[in-house]
Amino acid sequence: MIFQIVTLHGHIIDSLILAKVLDTIVMLGGTFTLSEVTVGTKREDPSHATIRIEAPTTELLQVILRTIQPHGAVVEAEQNCMVMPAPADGILPDDFYATSHLGTQIRWQGNWIDVPQPEMDLSIVVKTTPFSARMVPMGSVKKGELVVTGRKGIRVFPLERPKERDVFGFMEAQVSSERPYRHIIIDVARRMKTLQQSRKESQGTGKVLFAGGPAIVHAGGREALAWIIEAGYIHVLFCGNALAAHDMEASLYGTSLGYNLGIGHSVRHGHEHHLRTINRIRALGSIQQAVEDGVIQEGIMAACVRQGVQMVLAGTIRDDGPLPDVITDSITAQEAMRAALPGVELALLVASTLHAVATGNLLSASVPTVCVDINPAVPTKLSDRGSFQAVGLVMDSSSFLRELARELGWKG
Amino acid sequence: MIFQIVTLHGHIIDSLILAKVLDTIVMLGGTFTLSEVTVGTKREDPSHATIRIEAPTTELLQVILRTIQPHGAVVEAEQNCMVMPAPADGILPDDFYATSHLGTQIRWQGNWIDVPQPEMDLSIVVKTTPFSARMVPMGSVKKGELVVTGRKGIRVFPLERPKERDVFGFMEAQVSSERPYRHIIIDVARRMKTLQQSRKESQGTGKVLFAGGPAIVHAGGREALAWIIEAGYIHVLFCGNALAAHDMEASLYGTSLGYNLGIGHSVRHGHEHHLRTINRIRALGSIQQAVEDGVIQEGIMAACVRQGVQMVLAGTIRDDGPLPDVITDSITAQEAMRAALPGVELALLVASTLHAVATGNLLSASVPTVCVDINPAVPTKLSDRGSFQAVGLVMDSSSFLRELARELGWKG
Amino acid sequence: MIFQIVTLHGHIIDSLILAKVLDTIVMLGGTFTLSEVTVGTKREDPSHATIRIEAPTTELLQVILRTIQPHGAVVEAEQNCMVMPAPADGILPDDFYATSHLGTQIRWQGNWIDVPQPEMDLSIVVKTTPFSARMVPMGSVKKGELVVTGRKGIRVFPLERPKERDVFGFMEAQVSSERPYRHIIIDVARRMKTLQQSRKESQGTGKVLFAGGPAIVHAGGREALAWIIEAGYIHVLFCGNALAAHDMEASLYGTSLGYNLGIGHSVRHGHEHHLRTINRIRALGSIQQAVEDGVIQEGIMAACVRQGVQMVLAGTIRDDGPLPDVITDSITAQEAMRAALPGVELALLVASTLHAVATGNLLSASVPTVCVDINPAVPTKLSDRGSFQAVGLVMDSSSFLRELARELGWKG
Amino acid sequence: MIFQIVTLHGHIIDSLILAKVLDTIVMLGGTFTLSEVTVGTKREDPSHATIRIEAPTTELLQVILRTIQPHGAVVEAEQNCMVMPAPADGILPDDFYATSHLGTQIRWQGNWIDVPQPEMDLSIVVKTTPFSARMVPMGSVKKGELVVTGRKGIRVFPLERPKERDVFGFMEAQVSSERPYRHIIIDVARRMKTLQQSRKESQGTGKVLFAGGPAIVHAGGREALAWIIEAGYIHVLFCGNALAAHDMEASLYGTSLGYNLGIGHSVRHGHEHHLRTINRIRALGSIQQAVEDGVIQEGIMAACVRQGVQMVLAGTIRDDGPLPDVITDSITAQEAMRAALPGVELALLVASTLHAVATGNLLSASVPTVCVDINPAVPTKLSDRGSFQAVGLVMDSSSFLRELARELGWKG
Repeated sequence: MIFQIVTLHGHIIDSLILAKVLDTIVMLGGTFTLSEVTVGTKREDPSHATIRIEAPTTELLQVILRTIQPHGAVVEAEQNCMVMPAPADGILPDDFYATSHLGTQIRWQGNWIDVPQPEMDLSIVVKTTPFSARMVPMGSVKKGELVVTGRKGIRVFPLERPKERDVFGFMEAQVSSERPYRHIIIDVARRMKTLQQSRKESQGTGKVLFAGGPAIVHAGGREALAWIIEAGYIHVLFCGNALAAHDMEASLYGTSLGYNLGIGHSVRHGHEHHLRTINRIRALGSIQQAVEDGVIQEGIMAACVRQGVQMVLAGTIRDDGPLPDVITDSITAQEAMRAALPGVELALLVASTLHAVATGNLLSASVPTVCVDINPAVPTKLSDRGSFQAVGLVMDSSSFLRELARELGWKG
Repeated sequence: MIFQIVTLHGHIIDSLILAKVLDTIVMLGGTFTLSEVTVGTKREDPSHATIRIEAPTTELLQVILRTIQPHGAVVEAEQNCMVMPAPADGILPDDFYATSHLGTQIRWQGNWIDVPQPEMDLSIVVKTTPFSARMVPMGSVKKGELVVTGRKGIRVFPLERPKERDVFGFMEAQVSSERPYRHIIIDVARRMKTLQQSRKESQGTGKVLFAGGPAIVHAGGREALAWIIEAGYIHVLFCGNALAAHDMEASLYGTSLGYNLGIGHSVRHGHEHHLRTINRIRALGSIQQAVEDGVIQEGIMAACVRQGVQMVLAGTIRDDGPLPDVITDSITAQEAMRAALPGVELALLVASTLHAVATGNLLSASVPTVCVDINPAVPTKLSDRGSFQAVGLVMDSSSFLRELARELGWKG
Repeated sequence: MIFQIVTLHGHIIDSLILAKVLDTIVMLGGTFTLSEVTVGTKREDPSHATIRIEAPTTELLQVILRTIQPHGAVVEAEQNCMVMPAPADGILPDDFYATSHLGTQIRWQGNWIDVPQPEMDLSIVVKTTPFSARMVPMGSVKKGELVVTGRKGIRVFPLERPKERDVFGFMEAQVSSERPYRHIIIDVARRMKTLQQSRKESQGTGKVLFAGGPAIVHAGGREALAWIIEAGYIHVLFCGNALAAHDMEASLYGTSLGYNLGIGHSVRHGHEHHLRTINRIRALGSIQQAVEDGVIQEGIMAACVRQGVQMVLAGTIRDDGPLPDVITDSITAQEAMRAALPGVELALLVASTLHAVATGNLLSASVPTVCVDINPAVPTKLSDRGSFQAVGLVMDSSSFLRELARELGWKG
Repeated sequence: MIFQIVTLHGHIIDSLILAKVLDTIVMLGGTFTLSEVTVGTKREDPSHATIRIEAPTTELLQVILRTIQPHGAVVEAEQNCMVMPAPADGILPDDFYATSHLGTQIRWQGNWIDVPQPEMDLSIVVKTTPFSARMVPMGSVKKGELVVTGRKGIRVFPLERPKERDVFGFMEAQVSSERPYRHIIIDVARRMKTLQQSRKESQGTGKVLFAGGPAIVHAGGREALAWIIEAGYIHVLFCGNALAAHDMEASLYGTSLGYNLGIGHSVRHGHEHHLRTINRIRALGSIQQAVEDGVIQEGIMAACVRQGVQMVLAGTIRDDGPLPDVITDSITAQEAMRAALPGVELALLVASTLHAVATGNLLSASVPTVCVDINPAVPTKLSDRGSFQAVGLVMDSSSFLRELARELGWKG
């Protein structure tokens, strides 16, 4: 649908102008939304109306606009966006436009141009010949690049409800431990099956992203997650040193942070297991090598390697080791995560505040996202930061993964 | 094992008295524990030792005591307990002994007498002819009844590890959402199967107590809990008005607090459903009648009625209605709960701070107890109050019940 | 403001009817809100508009309605409410109307009648000669009383923003531990001072309600709360046995649950202190007597007695004792709480899930309410139940009370 | 105190050997602890005792050992530690010894040598000429360096209670929101004053470390923390990009994450403020420059710059920007944190899971540590990882900082 915003001002109620304009729009085949009507409280006061006119084609919209302009309808001023060169590498012009994670267009020489891959809190850098626009993090901008400034000539599209009539289509506040979660897990599983089916039939390339923390291993969700990955339902994994280390500790020692997963008790000297695991993988050179050598035979990492899952392991100051695969520079890691996002059509953020918020910051608002944490503050924090498409589940990660795996066919 | 505590005092180290006494005990066939040895820091200072002597029979213990007494071993003074009459109904003597939930004996005319059904924070009332002792809540004592006072002539037995080598035999701090829970649920299910088997074979009368809150219904655990009850694994249910009302609301309307459990959205005017449900049951006279009339056909309440589960519904100031079965007086409700406890050999406290703490207060320390809540403060609160035998699980109630039901054979 | 809803239907856009009607309303001195406009998508389709007309007087509203009716404006059907007799004591007719906590009117013989003291989840009982209407809990209705049924002839007024431009005038979601709380406490203190000033000048009778749990005493908020009460800022107190018992335990023993409040360590046999406290007060007959006798000289209860604060102590199944002032029957306690509410113009619900939710259920939506708890689930639960006027603060009760007391002038 | 462990074996009870040995120790001026006594259950069975002998000087200990050896007292076998060369850079030998955060000595050529700056989960690298030992992270070890392996010749000293009789001297489980916190804050303030006094009098160099998260700014604790720093009570600050960015956002815009800290509401386009702040500081080159230029005039960062506080800002994948001072490589940041720790005698970890756990990992067990978080899981997590000297406070960071500042003399 093409649309244009017009405004009417003056004695448009008693003069019947508003009525005539609305009638004209409908008569010519358009539709309208009266987004704002301010009626003067006294007879002599002017009134004001803002009308959003939609039409199936640009041509018809132009006809409507021409027809109603004699009634005083003013097409809301459209201006091109402004740009200024970056004053230095990594420094934006003072008045730079800060992006949202919603679909965004900028107006350049009279045309509205899509800015691909929307992400919040970036800048928009344009190139002129040929014209292109992209969202760029502050730190990556180069001196002299043209950065969009101010707010003119930029438009942002509100999030549309997804076509599927599932849980992501309803925006009820979901962050409560006193809400049923079954239908949410069923909807998530259905999406995962659909994406997998499309990929198998080579009709789709939609990917599922999983970002998770080490509590998955500690709390007993490892087996279910490994199954989900082996079955081909996950295509991108974001995690830290700890998830990978404890997963492989479980593979080598049967423990997680020295806690025996089978019998549920601490093991003597078990707190060293993750260090010995990390040291061993460092000696082998990479997780992939450890799996290929048969040192790591089962678990989350083994499944990822076997299934060709794209992994980004990001380092933090908490890390022991770290594992050789960990990207220790946070900006480099962020870039690697960003590079893995195109094509992601479902994101599962499980039991990691850091990865949930970091991934939420990178995701376009149009990507259905589920955030699972036993601490209700995590989904709330995500939503406070604007990722309102996130469905929050207040439950432990292990229960979530086991229920999800069962919906996907696991017999565990 | 019979035991006696004796003390030695004086220059027992350099005079070799301690060594001789210990040697004598072992020589005569007893064993000992040196529970306290205080050695004087200067040569002239006296030393002090407390020795717990154990022997297989009372006779042998007497022989040992007679043999070591010449060395100065003083049998720790054993005194009878003191009693005073209650000054008025519901009022205890000032110096009343406050009970713990551990096994307790009082000494009366030279004999140690068991006080049955230990419960914390009660008084001990004795009758003299014939002699009996029982734990009595403050409010139930009658004027003139003899109440144990002071601390003499009372002994309390530390909790012994259960014979079963399962999760209740290990007292590690379990209250963490980053601990695996699978082995705990497997152990709980094993106990439930064993108790059921014993009952079926008429060899046992051990009961399983379930105390729960309405979040079970809201969060989607209703189906699993109803199955567990129908399968005969629960024998006593403690709950409030809300769990029962929302369970039957689900039966009549398919909602819980107006939230459709199947599709996961609020239903128009759905918040009234629980009121209409309560009104309907009030009109029928009781939950049992509603089930027998076929008005309530499935769910937790229906299962309880069909299986003859002993139910205590306790009222609170939050209640709408309440349902006709609710005991609105808190002291009467507490008494009803207390009356249902004899025979309970496993307690599951799920998703209700009030019922978890209230039931924890009533339970003897020897009853294995699992406390499940998504808020870690609840198991912590229980343990702060002394119910250290409680295993805490930080997870949502629905996941707990679904996993438990599956372990017991549910195919849902 | 008086208002009436009217509807227009037909070719009201192209025929200019809508425009004429709106113009007429403004011309005659009324104002309008176009609450719904459905415009036919094809020219021949009829359109539909719902207009809310407001006028300063009933007379002017009648003039406007008479003037626009010739244009086809249909006054939305106004019907009297329906009533049916209650079939038995404590049983409502099947189709009873369940109330909300918003301002409510019912239409009886053509007149809209206020139903005083709105409270959610009750029924409306009417008396005919003379006519009166009141909200009645299910359990209190008597056989044959006329109960309003269905939804006709009932109207509910949306909550208006308070005149004061303070925190209660903004309905932003406030339940987060990552939000500043200072301005909220300042606004609450300002309201408390204003209410107190009005009472002193005998110009107002507005009361402040405080409902709280024992964590106030455990966590160190006792001193500040006692000061606030002594200073005359609280007029109604809702609590349970535990808050009162631990407050007086602190007065008699310096401990709370046996934990020394000054030095921060457990005291030997300290867990018995609350039992001995309760027993002592039972012997004296009442809290008031204990204060008057000088047994309890300081703290929350002493302040309440001295200041004539209206106290309702409600019992639960967790209670030891209980204290002689505790109302053990939950329905009787609820009635006592309800009876204390008229005149309450500010409610502080602190550190008690039970009292927060129970009080929230009883309060009219127009009473500004602050809910303070360290567990974010409590304010969320309150808002899930419809008490959307509640401002939630995620902080510990002691810090809240100390900051509030300082704003009110405490030098502690 | 110097000590040595000796063992006695044989018929030490009936032969009176044990008694004689104990007597000798005391007679010569030593003290002992009987850490293990196993008495044979039959007369012919040998018994066994382990005795820890303490003496004020090495000489006296040698005298005692020589005197009791004729009784059969065997000095527990002392072996030198084992070492192996690291097989490659960043790779430890398989059987490397993993350190704890307790005082540690290794035995080399018959002498016990201190390993300075204990930290958990590192390796011990020794140099031979001259001999030295230090704890080294896995990633920093170089090929061929000698790494301690196995468990022989290593001893670890249990944590001693601090001499001060304050909250850090009592190891009660403190992680509860239902515990008073006043005495803890008073003790912390007393330590801070003592450290400051010693530094002023040039008698001490003890430092206070503060590690915190951005919730401090969001929740309103900024003013108090800035005062504490300006007053000279903090000497090292660990934080991330967010705390610094939001602090300076508050300085430049009066908001935190776009939320006006004064009036408590979101500000239009306010979510961009932190980006504009970061961009501005990037343009200036550093936080220090921004303060020196007068761009940032008040707040936490300004106070740190003015007071010469040693700051380590560590990056994460959540960061926007980041600020020019942020160390984006996690290993480099960890090294910078480690380098700032010598001399730290008090650590405050406030409102940041990441920084609390990361700092807890780096701290020696002997450093008194307070962990403050509104989520009880954070102090619990710290204690799960072995930092048992951490006192946990479950409260919001703003209340903690305001109370602490008041104890230190703030008038806010």
